[in-house]
Amino acid sequence: MSSEFSLIDRIRARIALRPDVVLGIGDDAAIVQVPPGHELVIATDILNVGVHFPAETAPADIGWKALAVNLSDLAAMGAMPAWCTLSLSLPDGDPDWLDAFIEGFLDLALPADITLVGGDTTRGPLSVGVTACGLVPAGSALRRDGARVGDDVWVSGTLGDAALGLRDVLQGRATDPGLRARLDRPEPRLALGHALRGVANACIDVSDGVLQDLGHVCAASGVGASLDPDALPAGAGVAAIQDPDERAALQSSGDDYELCFTSDPARRERILAEARAVRTPVTRVGTINAGAGVQCLRDGVPVDLPQRGFDHFGHLN
Amino acid sequence: MSSEFSLIDRIRARIALRPDVVLGIGDDAAIVQVPPGHELVIATDILNVGVHFPAETAPADIGWKALAVNLSDLAAMGAMPAWCTLSLSLPDGDPDWLDAFIEGFLDLALPADITLVGGDTTRGPLSVGVTACGLVPAGSALRRDGARVGDDVWVSGTLGDAALGLRDVLQGRATDPGLRARLDRPEPRLALGHALRGVANACIDVSDGVLQDLGHVCAASGVGASLDPDALPAGAGVAAIQDPDERAALQSSGDDYELCFTSDPARRERILAEARAVRTPVTRVGTINAGAGVQCLRDGVPVDLPQRGFDHFGHLN
Repeated sequence: MSSEFSLIDRIRARIALRPDVVLGIGDDAAIVQVPPGHELVIATDILNVGVHFPAETAPADIGWKALAVNLSDLAAMGAMPAWCTLSLSLPDGDPDWLDAFIEGFLDLALPADITLVGGDTTRGPLSVGVTACGLVPAGSALRRDGARVGDDVWVSGTLGDAALGLRDVLQGRATDPGLRARLDRPEPRLALGHALRGVANACIDVSDGVLQDLGHVCAASGVGASLDPDALPAGAGVAAIQDPDERAALQSSGDDYELCFTSDPARRERILAEARAVRTPVTRVGTINAGAGVQCLRDGVPVDLPQRGFDHFGHLN
Repeated sequence: MSSEFSLIDRIRARIALRPDVVLGIGDDAAIVQVPPGHELVIATDILNVGVHFPAETAPADIGWKALAVNLSDLAAMGAMPAWCTLSLSLPDGDPDWLDAFIEGFLDLALPADITLVGGDTTRGPLSVGVTACGLVPAGSALRRDGARVGDDVWVSGTLGDAALGLRDVLQGRATDPGLRARLDRPEPRLALGHALRGVANACIDVSDGVLQDLGHVCAASGVGASLDPDALPAGAGVAAIQDPDERAALQSSGDDYELCFTSDPARRERILAEARAVRTPVTRVGTINAGAGVQCLRDGVPVDLPQRGFDHFGHLN
């Protein structure tokens, strides 16, 4: 059985330090430097086995995803990643498991330029908590509460791939590798979030399902939204589903880690140009209105979709 | 069963915001302002049921302790608390349990002037992770790696009370309320840590046991230390134990959340004055030397003490 110290040392040995890290892993706390004129953005998310990922998920994928869901929150704020801490509960101290976990974590941490500066390991059921700190020029962060009546509603990438992959896993079917990658290795939309500062009026990441997340934007902004379910961007696997309600339900299941944002219609060309520049497809899916809540309209006619948004006290249980 | 959102709302409703919080709980991430000329200090610690606290611990005490162990890390750095995030895994969404937990958390957060700015709740075995951010004027943080040959070794308060309280709990005996309070509601030595900036050469909090923690200081500083086990400060319960080895073993069991620090002997009067000013007793217990590791000396004669330091992969299991 490895001790806490050798686990931490194992992690520490693999970390590259950003120049703004004064003191990394190895003291009571880390010391970092926030550049002048910047604000600090702080996100925190836990992943628990059986709740946020299937038990048989590869340790490298767990490492990736634990960081990815937090970087997705930073992306939704338009923040650039800087430092993070890791809280790891493990049933045992299996060094092979830990090495694979760190490998997956670093696969994402290194290109995202985020340094792990602190951690805590403890014995317990598998659970991974990450707190990620990012930086934005003061006053420039994207928020949920800036949506305005008349704004377009956009989403990045495609929706529903992770949910389709998860359905296959839960039903014991062979999963398409592309769908499984969307489930296990979501790509946080950092470049797009950064590009949307000063362009989008409101932004959120699609972790709980697009209906629920757009609902959060509406509630925070004091507006309503209409959404065309058939406009939701779909990858090939989801697009092949014939029943439009089944397709829309998968597309609002969550775990997508795309960005949903609103912007003035006068900025459509600008949005498309910014998105092209960071090689991230974006799609217009609805409009902000003076009402409350999110209404789905198919050819202008209201439709009820099953609200299968992600509730961490219900998912997979 | 409460949903994640009502749990978060329940917490959010109770929080007082510091003026440097631009955006607190309720978006994808929080936004805070680090004052010019300051560095950010980041600590993270998890508490798991059955590992870091007995299963029958009151929820309010769990709330207090989860924050306290992190504030103790900030204290050891000489940092003043600013913001924190909370990651909570709960077997169910019992609102009474959660209200009591928040009560205990805020009992400490409010006087410590730390604002909860983000959180994540999920279903799982009881586990509480806190990441605490503090502030220090740039370059003034206390660290483990500054101990110098000839330094005095000091500890604050008394050692062994929490371990004695825990022993009673584990053996099913009635526990003295004062000992139980040391176990359940440790008081982070924030004022002392702050006062020691520019005075102490190295500092660590005594969470793993004084021998082990002083050993960390020695390893980081490239020095050794001698420690007089009979000089370790004891409360009445621990002092009443006749066997000096049993007493010393309890006193190096950890969970004390006192500060262990080193300082030039020329500063003894200054140390005592600073400690008096913040009403925190301090005791000289040893000396830094040019060797390696920590040696216990009783009347100048080396003695072996059981190294019962706190290993999170072994404690209580």
